[in-house]
Amino acid sequence: MLLVTEIASLKNIIKAKKQKGLTIGLVPTMGFLHEGHLSLMRAAAAENDFVVGSIFVNPLQFGIGEDYEEYPRDLENDTKLAKSAGCDLIFSPTVKEMYPSGYATFIQVERLTEGLCGASRPGHFVGVTTVVAKLFNLVRPNRAYFGQKDAQQAFVLIKMVEDLNMNLDIVVLPTVREPDGLALSSRNKYLTPGQRKEAAVIYKSLKEAESQIKKGERKTKAIRENITKSILLAKHAEVDYVEIVDCQDLSPISTINKGRCLIAVAAKFGKTRLIDNILVEV
Amino acid sequence: MLLVTEIASLKNIIKAKKQKGLTIGLVPTMGFLHEGHLSLMRAAAAENDFVVGSIFVNPLQFGIGEDYEEYPRDLENDTKLAKSAGCDLIFSPTVKEMYPSGYATFIQVERLTEGLCGASRPGHFVGVTTVVAKLFNLVRPNRAYFGQKDAQQAFVLIKMVEDLNMNLDIVVLPTVREPDGLALSSRNKYLTPGQRKEAAVIYKSLKEAESQIKKGERKTKAIRENITKSILLAKHAEVDYVEIVDCQDLSPISTINKGRCLIAVAAKFGKTRLIDNILVEV
Repeated sequence: MLLVTEIASLKNIIKAKKQKGLTIGLVPTMGFLHEGHLSLMRAAAAENDFVVGSIFVNPLQFGIGEDYEEYPRDLENDTKLAKSAGCDLIFSPTVKEMYPSGYATFIQVERLTEGLCGASRPGHFVGVTTVVAKLFNLVRPNRAYFGQKDAQQAFVLIKMVEDLNMNLDIVVLPTVREPDGLALSSRNKYLTPGQRKEAAVIYKSLKEAESQIKKGERKTKAIRENITKSILLAKHAEVDYVEIVDCQDLSPISTINKGRCLIAVAAKFGKTRLIDNILVEV
Repeated sequence: MLLVTEIASLKNIIKAKKQKGLTIGLVPTMGFLHEGHLSLMRAAAAENDFVVGSIFVNPLQFGIGEDYEEYPRDLENDTKLAKSAGCDLIFSPTVKEMYPSGYATFIQVERLTEGLCGASRPGHFVGVTTVVAKLFNLVRPNRAYFGQKDAQQAFVLIKMVEDLNMNLDIVVLPTVREPDGLALSSRNKYLTPGQRKEAAVIYKSLKEAESQIKKGERKTKAIRENITKSILLAKHAEVDYVEIVDCQDLSPISTINKGRCLIAVAAKFGKTRLIDNILVEV
């Protein structure tokens, strides 16, 4: 497996692969890889001739006071894991390589980024869409892989690709979970043992909501209140948002109608903000 | 020559050309083609295997109260001219094809878009960068051609390509002029015969500024005042801006130092806003 840190080298390698007519899969990550990332890499390896994983903690998608500095990093272990999952190349640039002095260009997806994490983290999705567009242009993948755990991110990136007529497919794969249901996240590392135990309540509350809906509940207010109540039973928990939104534009809905809706939660355990979601079809 | 209006057809054609390993040149235009556009198409034909000209009056780059509705259109004549200049395909989509209902994604280049036409036309360059990025993604050109007449546009697009790591070269070619010096523009059609005659003063004033600099003048205030004075001698003229800016970030300079600077003018003759510029090397 190749480890590449410079854009010029990456471009040369990609150009050669393209000229050979190989298909390319891209898995953009911020590193500190877990089974969620690795499941994306394995899928990419199964579906493409050449797999690029990117590892870049993107300062542009962190707000002031967020955890950019503390975000866990372990490139050595990441490269081992990525290799074992079928990656052919890891691209791990410096911040200066991605955003040289005088950098000035930003991509904004409107509306879909207004609610959920977009409301709690202003500027976050501009950072995401901008860095992902850069990676798409550098790697020119046939397919790029993202996890359902970051549901809003996936919706926003699909919208960007569609709106800007980008020449690739976005593949969204299921959230990988711990045995107790907690969604895998590099940020789980921040949790104390007590918080970690409590954090399972997020997925539990989502599953309760799902069964409430299956039993016929259609009013989102009642469902959201139940989720909030369940989560707040945990001693360290603080709720950032509990939302039930339409899958077209991610706008909040008051009544669940036929089709797919997204139930999304962000909650803090101590200083650690965790997100999770489920799609429910009625 | 092919005339294509649908994105799906364009994509299929481009895919086939790419698979054959052909190089592609793109000339994005708003149509009503003149010698300026045709010079770009001829250059594209000389340097690429396959040349795409786009003709799309992009509503996103027009402000409220600007001339989007009146902007001159003549697709039949344009296709003839484009063919004669070496175009292999004209892409002329509808507004709905480019911006379907729910469209939400925009590209912003900061700083370089703040002054000059960006100050007079808020939102204009977001419209330009967004539509051009879409065309780049659709046509996947090796080279894209733009005229020096829209100097700020060229600088902004070069910055976008660099910042977003887009995989193509921007080629900027000299402004084509009428015998009296007036820069060719589709908007010249709006001018009354009297205004048309007077409009030659713009380039004349720029050439005067150049010779002032060659004679040793380095203070931009004096140079700008002379340009304004010259233009205002024309009865129908109104000055929008006269600026002398650095070629790195397009910020105004007070003293001309060694290197290249851009002298840029926007002036109205009646309701018609014209722009022109020269690059001066000292």
